[in-house]
Amino acid sequence: MIKRSPSLTDQVKSHIKEQILNDEFEGNRIPSETDLANDLGVSRTTVRDALSRLESEGVIYRKQGVGTFVNRPGLQIKSRLDEIWSYEAVLEAHGYRPSTKVLDVRREPAEPAFANALNVPVDAEILVVRKLFLEDHQPVILTCNYIPQVLIQKPFETTDLKVPVFDFLGEFGDQHLSYYLSEIVPVVATESLAHTLHVPALTAVLSLEEIGFNEENKPILKACSYFRDDLLRLGLIRRKV
Amino acid sequence: MIKRSPSLTDQVKSHIKEQILNDEFEGNRIPSETDLANDLGVSRTTVRDALSRLESEGVIYRKQGVGTFVNRPGLQIKSRLDEIWSYEAVLEAHGYRPSTKVLDVRREPAEPAFANALNVPVDAEILVVRKLFLEDHQPVILTCNYIPQVLIQKPFETTDLKVPVFDFLGEFGDQHLSYYLSEIVPVVATESLAHTLHVPALTAVLSLEEIGFNEENKPILKACSYFRDDLLRLGLIRRKV
Repeated sequence: MIKRSPSLTDQVKSHIKEQILNDEFEGNRIPSETDLANDLGVSRTTVRDALSRLESEGVIYRKQGVGTFVNRPGLQIKSRLDEIWSYEAVLEAHGYRPSTKVLDVRREPAEPAFANALNVPVDAEILVVRKLFLEDHQPVILTCNYIPQVLIQKPFETTDLKVPVFDFLGEFGDQHLSYYLSEIVPVVATESLAHTLHVPALTAVLSLEEIGFNEENKPILKACSYFRDDLLRLGLIRRKV
Repeated sequence: MIKRSPSLTDQVKSHIKEQILNDEFEGNRIPSETDLANDLGVSRTTVRDALSRLESEGVIYRKQGVGTFVNRPGLQIKSRLDEIWSYEAVLEAHGYRPSTKVLDVRREPAEPAFANALNVPVDAEILVVRKLFLEDHQPVILTCNYIPQVLIQKPFETTDLKVPVFDFLGEFGDQHLSYYLSEIVPVVATESLAHTLHVPALTAVLSLEEIGFNEENKPILKACSYFRDDLLRLGLIRRKV
C-alpha cells in the first residue's frame, strides 16, 4: 500500500501520544522540551510544535510555572469527531470486534450539486460505494462514498473496497486524504435506513455529510455516514477561541 | 466583566485569523514567520506556534517549498463545533440578528450521575438555567446549563444570566471555562421540545451533552443544547491523525 510519510512533527506527536496512552509518564507529567528533544533526537522546535498540537487537541495541558501534564478527561473520548480514524479503529477503541461488509458498488452520473462539490463536470462518472461496519454481526455505521471515477487509475475488485476509503484512494488513485469538511446532521431513520442499521423506524440517527480534500486542497471524495447512537457515541473537545 | 487575558500565542493567532477573515493577505499568501514576527513585535517562536495552531484548525496550509496560504474551504464553516463561541456570535456569523430569552432559573439537588460528573456531593444544590437563542423571534438553540451553586460567589439577578454562560461563570463565580468535553447526540424531538423550538413533533434535532472544565481541569458546568438543523448546521474540520 502506498503511504505518504507523515511529517516529523506528526511522528513526534504520535509517539508522545502513544506514550501517554500507554501511561508511560510518571505522575502524568510530560518531560521538558529539552529532554524530549534529546530522547527523540529531534529539534526542540519540532517537540514544541508537537506539544502545541497535543495541547490544542486537549491531550495535554500546561500549568504556568509548574509543567506540562496529561489531560485525562481529554483521553476519555473514544470516537473523536475532529480526527479521522478508520471506522474499524473506532470500533476497536470501543472494545468491539469490527467487520466490514461492502453492500454495493455502482457507477452513476454526477448530479449538478455533486459535480460542483467534487469539482467535476455534470454527469461525470461517480463511483458509489456503500459499506456497513459491524460489531459481532450488529450494524453500527453505514457509509456511502462518492468518488470521481477519473481519480481511479488502476483496476480493482470489490474486495479492494473493504479497506478504509482513504487507503483505497491512496492505492488505486494516488490521492491522499488530508481532511474532511464535515457537517453534522441529525436524521430520523427512514424505513430503509432503519432496516439497514437494524434499528426501529423513527429512531434518531447521527449522520456526517463530508467532502474529503487532498493535500493540495482539492476535493477527492464525498462521504455520507450514519451512526447508531446506541452503539457509538461521537465526541470531541471544544475549546475557547 | 472579569476576563483572563489570553496567551500571547492566542492573541497572535486571533490577530492573524482576523486578517485572514478580512481578506488582508494578497493572493491568500501568509507572510513569512520573520515578517509576521517583526510586524507584530513578537518572537518567531510565538508566530510559529500561532501558525501551527491555525494549520491544525484548517485555516491555513503549508505548501512545501512554496509558502503558507489561506485555506478557503476551511473558512466556509460558520458554526465550528470544535470551537466555543457564544451562540449569539454563531447566529451573527449566519447573518441572523440574535436575541436571548431566559426561560427559567431554578435550583435543584444534584442527582448521583450529575454529582459525579460535576464532582460535587449528591444532593448538592445545582443552579439550572434554560435559555432560548432566537433569530427574529424564531427559536434556533435551546440550552440548559447546570452550575453547582457552590461556585457562585456573588448575588445575581435573572437578567445577569442573559450573557453567555462562560461570562456569567467568570463574573459571578470567578471560574474560567477552558474547554468542553462534548458528546453529540441525535434526538427525535419530544412534544415539549418541539413546542419550545417551534418545530413539528418527531423532527430530528441535534443535541450536545457537555461538561465544561476550567483551566485547572476541574468540571464547573454541565450543559445540554438543542439545535434546529433547518436554521443552523454545525460543522467542523476532521483531520488525519
